[in-house]
Amino acid sequence: MPSMHTDKAFEADLRDLREKLLAMGAKVETLIVQSMKALTDRDSALAEKVVAADKDVNRLEVDIDELCRKILALRQPAASDLRLITTALKIVTDLERIGDLAVNIAERSMDLNQAPPLAPYVDTPRLAELAQRQVRMSLDAFVSGDVAKAEEVLRGDDLLDALFLKIFNELLAYMMEDSRNIRRATALMFIAKHLERIGDHALNVAEMVVYMVRGKDIRHPQSRNLAE
Amino acid sequence: MPSMHTDKAFEADLRDLREKLLAMGAKVETLIVQSMKALTDRDSALAEKVVAADKDVNRLEVDIDELCRKILALRQPAASDLRLITTALKIVTDLERIGDLAVNIAERSMDLNQAPPLAPYVDTPRLAELAQRQVRMSLDAFVSGDVAKAEEVLRGDDLLDALFLKIFNELLAYMMEDSRNIRRATALMFIAKHLERIGDHALNVAEMVVYMVRGKDIRHPQSRNLAE
Repeated sequence: MPSMHTDKAFEADLRDLREKLLAMGAKVETLIVQSMKALTDRDSALAEKVVAADKDVNRLEVDIDELCRKILALRQPAASDLRLITTALKIVTDLERIGDLAVNIAERSMDLNQAPPLAPYVDTPRLAELAQRQVRMSLDAFVSGDVAKAEEVLRGDDLLDALFLKIFNELLAYMMEDSRNIRRATALMFIAKHLERIGDHALNVAEMVVYMVRGKDIRHPQSRNLAE
Repeated sequence: MPSMHTDKAFEADLRDLREKLLAMGAKVETLIVQSMKALTDRDSALAEKVVAADKDVNRLEVDIDELCRKILALRQPAASDLRLITTALKIVTDLERIGDLAVNIAERSMDLNQAPPLAPYVDTPRLAELAQRQVRMSLDAFVSGDVAKAEEVLRGDDLLDALFLKIFNELLAYMMEDSRNIRRATALMFIAKHLERIGDHALNVAEMVVYMVRGKDIRHPQSRNLAE
């Protein structure tokens, strides 16, 4: 095998790939922030913007997939470079799903904005911040091949799960207190669930980064726990 | 580029890949069936079996990923063969997530089996059957490169979404009727949501099959709709 790292064209392709993945990551982070702002500020116009922006994320996925295939076909990478490309192919799917989840949150927010707010949404924006932070860190870990950062993401997931459970139980209490709360509390439950799932995608990315760097698969140390 | 199809070793690798993917598909189908049986037959021992079996699915994911990388490194496939391998890398992730969702259903079933049943679970097993069928058809479409079958999966998704919405609204009515139903109805809502999401994974697989065969990306014709 030739040493691919000496190949300038290959290096340029990898730089392009990293930049495109970071751009896609920044885009989905923005969608998370905007979908939550649509909820907290009761801004349905912003929610519609999130729904419309999903197609940009999808376009980025298609572009990055094509770029990965181009690199595989033209550069025939081996060993760690091959792992980098196959990992990128999987990560891009996680990022696209995160975009879908932000859209789902925006859609629920539009529903919720039709009725008076149920309660101050204190913990849900906090959960969104945590999820967004996990997404950013996991992607930073990927582009810099930083295992320590990936492991920080792995540790951070428990915090998200705990906060989801807290929100879930609070919403359950609201529902039991007054049946008029049920519809809104259910919508908020799904929003919290979407945020927790965004965190799971970041976790997936972090696990793949550890594998990519160490060549050892640490995925699936245990089954994911569903809070409740 | 050499014609890879004349290469017997390459053909053997591809056969191996198809067989492994089908085995993984059969495994996750079984987990869907068992997780639902755990619910309808109130069989928590079976639910525990599903939770324990998840590690087999995870092992299969790791094996198939390795096989794909081996094929990429040794055979350096081009054009449609390259698309086949990169698609397999993505599909295996969908299958693994389907396994996770079956585990989530099994976990919720164990909770539900602690209390008297809320109501006959007529539509939920029907939703599970539809989801399972979509998974099988999408994977069959992949291994046989059958676009017509993939398109059948794409059309079938509306049925799942409609049934999910029906179940969701029925459960909402139960909750409003009696606050003692809320906890159980919420758990059933999440089970229905997991089944609908299993259907989404089958949809993803089907979209990738169309792309793989036609070389044209039909993913993301519109945003996924969240029922409610």
